[in-house]
Amino acid sequence: MILKGVLGDRDAWSAVGRCSIEKAVEVVGTRTAMLVMREAYYGTTRFDDFAERVGMTRAATSTRLSALVEAGLLEQRDYREEGQRTRKEYVLTDAGRDLVPVVWALFQWGRKHLPSETVLELAHHDCGAPVDVEVRCADGHEVGLDDVELRLPR
Amino acid sequence: MILKGVLGDRDAWSAVGRCSIEKAVEVVGTRTAMLVMREAYYGTTRFDDFAERVGMTRAATSTRLSALVEAGLLEQRDYREEGQRTRKEYVLTDAGRDLVPVVWALFQWGRKHLPSETVLELAHHDCGAPVDVEVRCADGHEVGLDDVELRLPR
Repeated sequence: MILKGVLGDRDAWSAVGRCSIEKAVEVVGTRTAMLVMREAYYGTTRFDDFAERVGMTRAATSTRLSALVEAGLLEQRDYREEGQRTRKEYVLTDAGRDLVPVVWALFQWGRKHLPSETVLELAHHDCGAPVDVEVRCADGHEVGLDDVELRLPR
Repeated sequence: MILKGVLGDRDAWSAVGRCSIEKAVEVVGTRTAMLVMREAYYGTTRFDDFAERVGMTRAATSTRLSALVEAGLLEQRDYREEGQRTRKEYVLTDAGRDLVPVVWALFQWGRKHLPSETVLELAHHDCGAPVDVEVRCADGHEVGLDDVELRLPR
């Protein structure tokens, strides 16, 4: 990785408290946040389903769902089945959908580097090819750690 | 997202304790783990530099570096500058490099969705185009949440 221009002297600048990675991890960097988002991607919307499928107590589910609504990744909506009272459901926002690469990159890393009993696969529904999270530039080149530069906006 | 075949009935199977995302988050899903990896990508290798650049106490630095060595993301090596005693440095392993998409996807999400004072950019050093973390299939199609299927390996 190349630290460009004034960023080159890593001791001359500090990212503490101002780094996007740090702020993102504070919002979504817990086990249950990631697993609730996983379930939301699988299509889960109801409180009881989140609790059961993630394996959380009702109290933990309530705390986690509220935090994700507060952070703007899920949105609370009313729904009602015939003959039942109105309930809340939790649906993905655009910010929640934008987190997909994080969750799938974790999936990909865990699948490769950690032992697992189930080995599920992600694939492109239209063509059937396996799906991967890739680092690319806007010109379409695949970019590795050694080819990336960190820079101030031009 | 499409849950394929037997996976279609989400109540008929459980990922609890067997999910790659869950296992990955247990290993790397803390604020300091992500920030140590960020620094390793920036080129940091020395204990004191990790402590200062991440903004951690020496005790926290020691715990976090040991955990990442134990998990196989960093490797401990000896180094020695002239006239000084031998010291330890921490260098990236292949598993550590494979975590790049996770950390940069968090960077990308935080940059878009959270207020930040500094807005650093990642770019491709060769061509200068901005770098993004993308979800693609092996045939090169960009894949969104609605086009992905989760399946058992064929």
